[in-house]
Amino acid sequence: MSLLGIDVGTTACKSVAFDLAGRPLAAASREYPLLTPAPGRIELNADVVWEAVQATVREVNAAITDPVVAIAVSTQGEAVTPIGPDGAALAPSQVTFDTRAVAQSDRLAEAIGRERLARITGHLPHPMHTIAKIMWWAEHDPQLTARTWKFLCYGDLVSWRLGGEAAIDESMAARTQAFDVEHGRWSAEILAAAGIEADRLATPVPSGTPLGQVDPRLARELGFSGAPLIVAGGLDQSCGAFGAGVRGAGEAMFAIGTTVCLAPVFARRQERLIGSIYPCFPHVVPGQWITLAGNFTGGSLLRWFRDTLGEPEVSRAAASGQDVYDLLTAAAGDEPSPLLILPHFAGSGAPSNDPHSRGAMVGLTFGTTRGQIVRAVLEGVMFEIALNRECLAQSGVELTGVVAVGGGARSDRWLTIVADVLGIPVRRSSHLEAACWGAARLAGEGAGLLPPGVVGVELRETPSFQPDPERSGYYRDRLAVYRELYGALRPLNAAL
Amino acid sequence: MSLLGIDVGTTACKSVAFDLAGRPLAAASREYPLLTPAPGRIELNADVVWEAVQATVREVNAAITDPVVAIAVSTQGEAVTPIGPDGAALAPSQVTFDTRAVAQSDRLAEAIGRERLARITGHLPHPMHTIAKIMWWAEHDPQLTARTWKFLCYGDLVSWRLGGEAAIDESMAARTQAFDVEHGRWSAEILAAAGIEADRLATPVPSGTPLGQVDPRLARELGFSGAPLIVAGGLDQSCGAFGAGVRGAGEAMFAIGTTVCLAPVFARRQERLIGSIYPCFPHVVPGQWITLAGNFTGGSLLRWFRDTLGEPEVSRAAASGQDVYDLLTAAAGDEPSPLLILPHFAGSGAPSNDPHSRGAMVGLTFGTTRGQIVRAVLEGVMFEIALNRECLAQSGVELTGVVAVGGGARSDRWLTIVADVLGIPVRRSSHLEAACWGAARLAGEGAGLLPPGVVGVELRETPSFQPDPERSGYYRDRLAVYRELYGALRPLNAAL
Repeated sequence: MSLLGIDVGTTACKSVAFDLAGRPLAAASREYPLLTPAPGRIELNADVVWEAVQATVREVNAAITDPVVAIAVSTQGEAVTPIGPDGAALAPSQVTFDTRAVAQSDRLAEAIGRERLARITGHLPHPMHTIAKIMWWAEHDPQLTARTWKFLCYGDLVSWRLGGEAAIDESMAARTQAFDVEHGRWSAEILAAAGIEADRLATPVPSGTPLGQVDPRLARELGFSGAPLIVAGGLDQSCGAFGAGVRGAGEAMFAIGTTVCLAPVFARRQERLIGSIYPCFPHVVPGQWITLAGNFTGGSLLRWFRDTLGEPEVSRAAASGQDVYDLLTAAAGDEPSPLLILPHFAGSGAPSNDPHSRGAMVGLTFGTTRGQIVRAVLEGVMFEIALNRECLAQSGVELTGVVAVGGGARSDRWLTIVADVLGIPVRRSSHLEAACWGAARLAGEGAGLLPPGVVGVELRETPSFQPDPERSGYYRDRLAVYRELYGALRPLNAAL
Repeated sequence: MSLLGIDVGTTACKSVAFDLAGRPLAAASREYPLLTPAPGRIELNADVVWEAVQATVREVNAAITDPVVAIAVSTQGEAVTPIGPDGAALAPSQVTFDTRAVAQSDRLAEAIGRERLARITGHLPHPMHTIAKIMWWAEHDPQLTARTWKFLCYGDLVSWRLGGEAAIDESMAARTQAFDVEHGRWSAEILAAAGIEADRLATPVPSGTPLGQVDPRLARELGFSGAPLIVAGGLDQSCGAFGAGVRGAGEAMFAIGTTVCLAPVFARRQERLIGSIYPCFPHVVPGQWITLAGNFTGGSLLRWFRDTLGEPEVSRAAASGQDVYDLLTAAAGDEPSPLLILPHFAGSGAPSNDPHSRGAMVGLTFGTTRGQIVRAVLEGVMFEIALNRECLAQSGVELTGVVAVGGGARSDRWLTIVADVLGIPVRRSSHLEAACWGAARLAGEGAGLLPPGVVGVELRETPSFQPDPERSGYYRDRLAVYRELYGALRPLNAAL
């Protein structure tokens, strides 16, 4: 018996089969292109994504001997696709960073009030949220809207195409900004203001809820033995925090992927976060809550360095068979960089949330080395998270430790910097691809094969990185300088 | 018959023999190490420099058939060496950027007054000047000072070791900050305040003054036929402006070497520059005056890019036999960079003159390319010069065109950027290594073989780069943004 976790991201999907103890048995992934047909429009072709998902499932099924008995989906939030009565996608999906729905988001905020929207949904109004995107279609393409059976997010869409009910878990529902997070149902008030009927959306259910079995014919096509149970999964960051074994009470997931994201988990809704720049919404563990604080950069900045300035490391990696990122982080050395890098290469996320901000490198001298630049990349990404840690603390969220997941968490050097800059212990999750395990574990719960909750999720003791007191003190002083960098350059960036 | 110009720089010397029409016949150069025995101390070993100079002279003599009949030396300013009665160097030379003499410079400024110092010497007080360095020895090593016959700058030292009088030309004398530029003599007032007797210094003479013949035995050792005439040369930037054929009246030399330097030449002393951040002192053309506005960076910034981030271009240059700087400037492309680079990698020169400033790169995005970075290097160096052009204009010095010299002047791309950013025409000098030709030409004048003055100095018509009106307008707007960059980062750089 095995459990399948499917993670549907913005540019790639991944399927991993696990045994009931959480050991990965086989994994497969596929990339797909983001479409940018016009300024501000960022789309996915839902059929291409669905083909990619099926390909990964087939590949995993072909590689395992323990048959999959239950499946759940971890997925990007917000992205939404209009689905016709016959199940076909009627238009490309609008994804998170598609910005066409600014006016709709503003209108909703005006109709309901920013504070009340935040109170109901756990999120301040923003055009990234699903409800604004649906309003955009209703306004700009009434015919398409009329032909639409349901507007589905990627978790609901994949689960439904596999053969389950059209259901959306609460973490994903919260990211639509039409969900009443306290009462666990669509907000009639918001849907009325948006002009959307509830039956145009998937049915909200708690994560871990069984949704039916995989359609038998599709199951055969995908290489399943029998027809596994489909279970409601959740938002990728929430599945990641669950898969990483984050227990709440001051602990947070820290995901180091293309972007970085800090995700503290709580035993109850955090009153002081309501209306703040930080959302607070239902976690995939029923009864728990989660917040997110992230940069728009992270590993992507190292990738930029690799692609733009890293030809020597790329060549050496190709020649030696080493990983190019291992070579880059090795070059970063053990000493703090004399440089500061503002990692706003794609504008800034929390806390400054400034789409016009740009990246910067300051403190350059003729003595500046490549290693110091790479080190400053890692430090800059972490200074940005340290600012978020401070802002969260001002809202009463005190972090006592983080569990690191994602590709970047493989690097001892990066985790040492995380511990030193944040000044708190960092544990490396035993599941670096934690979102798939989080989803698979929800599948196991839904199938009654695993107990609910996070106890016992960790496979084994994993290395822990303690902050070095002296180094942490140094970085605290350094953060005081870093803090001024964004503001100093803001007027310039606006003029650039 | 040929003329020999010797250029004694901070890290290398070069000798070039020319025919009387200015065509180079043979050239040789040698590098020598800058010594940095302690923070703030930057020194040269005068004996090592002298050996290097002799080696270049021997190499040139071995390569030419037209015998050298006259020699003059172009040299770095300020650097000074204590010479004993037997001609030996008694201590390493203090060079320009050696900063040990801050207190001495301050004391001199207090004794004479800043304004009066500027009025007498054409320079505001600064620890780089020779007189402060000599005061430092007098204070910290009275025994060495007592044993010293004369404190010689490199032009005087090399001319004297060749066999000439211990004489210093007026452009070099001005850089000591002990020279009365109006009256063409050491300032008794300054020497008294400094506690230095005039006979401890070389005798000031106009550039082009014959100083004697090369010592016959040394002449044989160096491969001369007979004993050439030694003629007073001048400061390297002044010799460069002369060698480039800068005629004054709004024209300036623009030297693109390790650093960049703008050197306008005037028919009379510029009253409005007195006491400004720009020196104004006797040119090597008697009766003319010159000012200098320079960065501490220039080609050195491209070299930093090459050494730190340019491995791909270095490899391709090695494989193809092309010049690595040609590959780098080719990568810079024709389009203005979306980035801004503050080129203060060694602190800033005029107009901000801030030793604590550092380099910065702003406007970075995930779309930033290597070529955009290289282009921003070239542009940043020129924006800094454009600020100087503005400051000079505010002091009544309007530039109408520049003559480009130095290694960087070989690049059409760089000269196009110079023309577009400064908004004035740029002519490439027919002598890119203009300082050697300027010195050789002074030697020819001193020997009575060439008429005095600059008319007819140019060998041939050279390419001229006109500013593109649209591009110049763009860069004018861009300069307005660049202007804010230094100030925005100043508090941060102080804290870094």
